[in-house]
Amino acid sequence: MRAAIAMAARARGLTSPNPAVGCLIVRNGVTVGTGWTQHGGRPHAEAVALDAAGSRAGGADIYVTLEPCAHDSRRGPACADLLIAAKPARVIAALKDPDPRTAGKGFARLRAAGIEVVEGLCAELAAREHAGFLVRQREGRPRITLKLAVSIDGRAALASGESQWITGPAARTHAHLIRAESDLILVGRGTLEADDPALDVRIAGLQHRSPRPAIISATLGEIPVTAKISARDPLLLRSAQDLFGQPYNDILVEGGAGLAGSLIRDDLVDRLLIYRAPILIGDRAPGIGDIGLADLSAAHGRWALRTTRRLGADTLEIYARI
Amino acid sequence: MRAAIAMAARARGLTSPNPAVGCLIVRNGVTVGTGWTQHGGRPHAEAVALDAAGSRAGGADIYVTLEPCAHDSRRGPACADLLIAAKPARVIAALKDPDPRTAGKGFARLRAAGIEVVEGLCAELAAREHAGFLVRQREGRPRITLKLAVSIDGRAALASGESQWITGPAARTHAHLIRAESDLILVGRGTLEADDPALDVRIAGLQHRSPRPAIISATLGEIPVTAKISARDPLLLRSAQDLFGQPYNDILVEGGAGLAGSLIRDDLVDRLLIYRAPILIGDRAPGIGDIGLADLSAAHGRWALRTTRRLGADTLEIYARI
Repeated sequence: MRAAIAMAARARGLTSPNPAVGCLIVRNGVTVGTGWTQHGGRPHAEAVALDAAGSRAGGADIYVTLEPCAHDSRRGPACADLLIAAKPARVIAALKDPDPRTAGKGFARLRAAGIEVVEGLCAELAAREHAGFLVRQREGRPRITLKLAVSIDGRAALASGESQWITGPAARTHAHLIRAESDLILVGRGTLEADDPALDVRIAGLQHRSPRPAIISATLGEIPVTAKISARDPLLLRSAQDLFGQPYNDILVEGGAGLAGSLIRDDLVDRLLIYRAPILIGDRAPGIGDIGLADLSAAHGRWALRTTRRLGADTLEIYARI
Repeated sequence: MRAAIAMAARARGLTSPNPAVGCLIVRNGVTVGTGWTQHGGRPHAEAVALDAAGSRAGGADIYVTLEPCAHDSRRGPACADLLIAAKPARVIAALKDPDPRTAGKGFARLRAAGIEVVEGLCAELAAREHAGFLVRQREGRPRITLKLAVSIDGRAALASGESQWITGPAARTHAHLIRAESDLILVGRGTLEADDPALDVRIAGLQHRSPRPAIISATLGEIPVTAKISARDPLLLRSAQDLFGQPYNDILVEGGAGLAGSLIRDDLVDRLLIYRAPILIGDRAPGIGDIGLADLSAAHGRWALRTTRRLGADTLEIYARI
C-alpha cells in the first residue's frame, strides 16, 4: 500500500477535480501492474494498472489508495466494474471514497461479485496523501495551504517592500516543488500589482507543471494584459468565499500579508508552510496581517507542528489546522 | 573528557566571574576523583578532584576542561602547583585559558615539572560549555542570550499587552532551567513597570539558583521597593554599554521588545533562544522592536540555527551569532 501511495504522489496537482489515486497489482508476490490517475483525471489508476497487468490480474491482490468508483462516466466505465471483470482474489483499499456517488457502493459492488475487500490499510498515510480531495469533499472547497517565507521574528519584508531574498536557494526550490504539486496558485491583488510575480515552476523538467494562477481582488476588473501570468488563463476571484465550489483539490496561497491575514481570520487555512530564514528583521512588514484576535486563548489549540526540516541555512516548518 | 564537561555543566550560573570547570582523575581505568568549580568560584575543580583522589592521583591521568590556573590567589594556590604536587602522569585539557594571568603559563609550568600535557581534546564541546567565560575574555562583556517566547509569526503579545501564556508548561519550565544556569537576568524598564516580573527559578529543588536580577533604564532612579525583585539586590544599568566589565559570564535577557531590538541593533546578542508556540497572532506586538535594518543583505549571514527541540506543543530554536 505504501508503494501505491507513492504512485499516487506522482500525480499530485495534475488530476483535479479528481483525486490522484495510486494502484498496485500483486500476484504470487510479483508486481504485475501499477498505475496512477492520469493528467486531467482520466484514466483512473485502476484502469491503468489493470491494463498493464492484463490476464495476470486474475487471482491477484489489488492495492488501491481510495475506494474504486462505482459510477460510470462518459470518460469510462466504473472502476468497480473493471475490477470485477478482472477477477482478482482481493481488493485492498486504504480509504473509503467520501464522494456520494461512490461512498461505499464501490466496495459493496465488489463484495457482491464475490471479491474479498479489505479496508483501512495505511489509512492515515493515504488520508495525508489525499488531503486536498478529502478537504474538498468535506468542506466544499479546496484544501488551502498558506506559504510564507519569513525571518526568525516572522517578518516577510522590510518596510521598503524589499522581500525577494529572505530564504536561500534550497528553500526556494522546495517552494517551487510545492507549486508543482498544487492545482491552483493564489495571490492577492496587492502582490500582483507590486511584484508582478510569474507564479510558475522553475525546476528543470517540471516547468510544465506550473499551476493555474489565481487572483483575489474585490475591485480589480481584470488581470492587466502586461502581467506575467496573463497568458496562463488566470482565475479571478472576488473574495475567499469564491473558493467554495472551485474544481481544485489543492490551492497554494503565496501572499501577501493582507490576504494571509484575512484567510486566517476566516479560518480558511488548512496548512501552513513556513520557510524560515535565520535572520532578524525587526519591527516592520509582518508576514501575516491583522487576524482580528481578541485574546490569546482564542489563538491556542488551532495549529500543530507536523514536521520541520532543514533546507540549507533555512528551516521549513509545516503546521496543520487541528 | 565528556564526563569532565558534564561535571562543569553542574556549576553553570554559580561561579562567576570564574569559569565553571570540570575535572576527572583516572588511574588504571578507574575514576579516583571528580570535581567542579564550587559556588562563588572557589575551590577550583582541580582542587576538589585532587582532594577526593588523595594519593591515588599519583601516576594518574587528569582530565580538565580548561587549562589549570597559574596564578595564586588569596583564596588558594594555583591549580598548576597543586597538580605538580600530586605527581600525575598526564594532564589532558580541552582548552587553553584565555585569561592573561594563565594563557599557556599553566601548561608551561606542568611541562617544566615533567608532566605530560595533552591539549585540545573535545575542544569544540568544551568551548560550547565555557562559552560565557570565553565571550567575556574576548569581548570584555558577558555572553548575552536573548530569550523570546513568540508565535509562529514572531509575535510576543497582543496589542493589549496580554502575553503571559504564549508557550506551554514544558517550554516555561525549560526557560526556568536556563534562568538557573545564568549569572544575571536582565529586563528593560518597561517590562519591570508593566509586568513586575519575579525573574526567579520556579523549579522544585532549584529555587535557590535564581540569578541576580538586573534592569536597564536610562531614566529610572532606582527599583521601586514594591517590585518583586527589590529584595534580591537588583543591578541597575544605565545602558547596554554598562554590560562591559560586569563580573558575569552569562546574562539572560527576557524582554521586552524594545530592549531586544536595541541589543540586536548594537550587535550585543550572542545567542537567541526562541520558544515558539504553534499559534498565530497577526499584526500586533512584535517580539523584537526596530533594529534599524536598512536592507535585507545586512540581515543575512549573522545567525545560524544550532538546534531545535520540541517542548510539548512548542518548539525551542537556538540560534548562534556567526
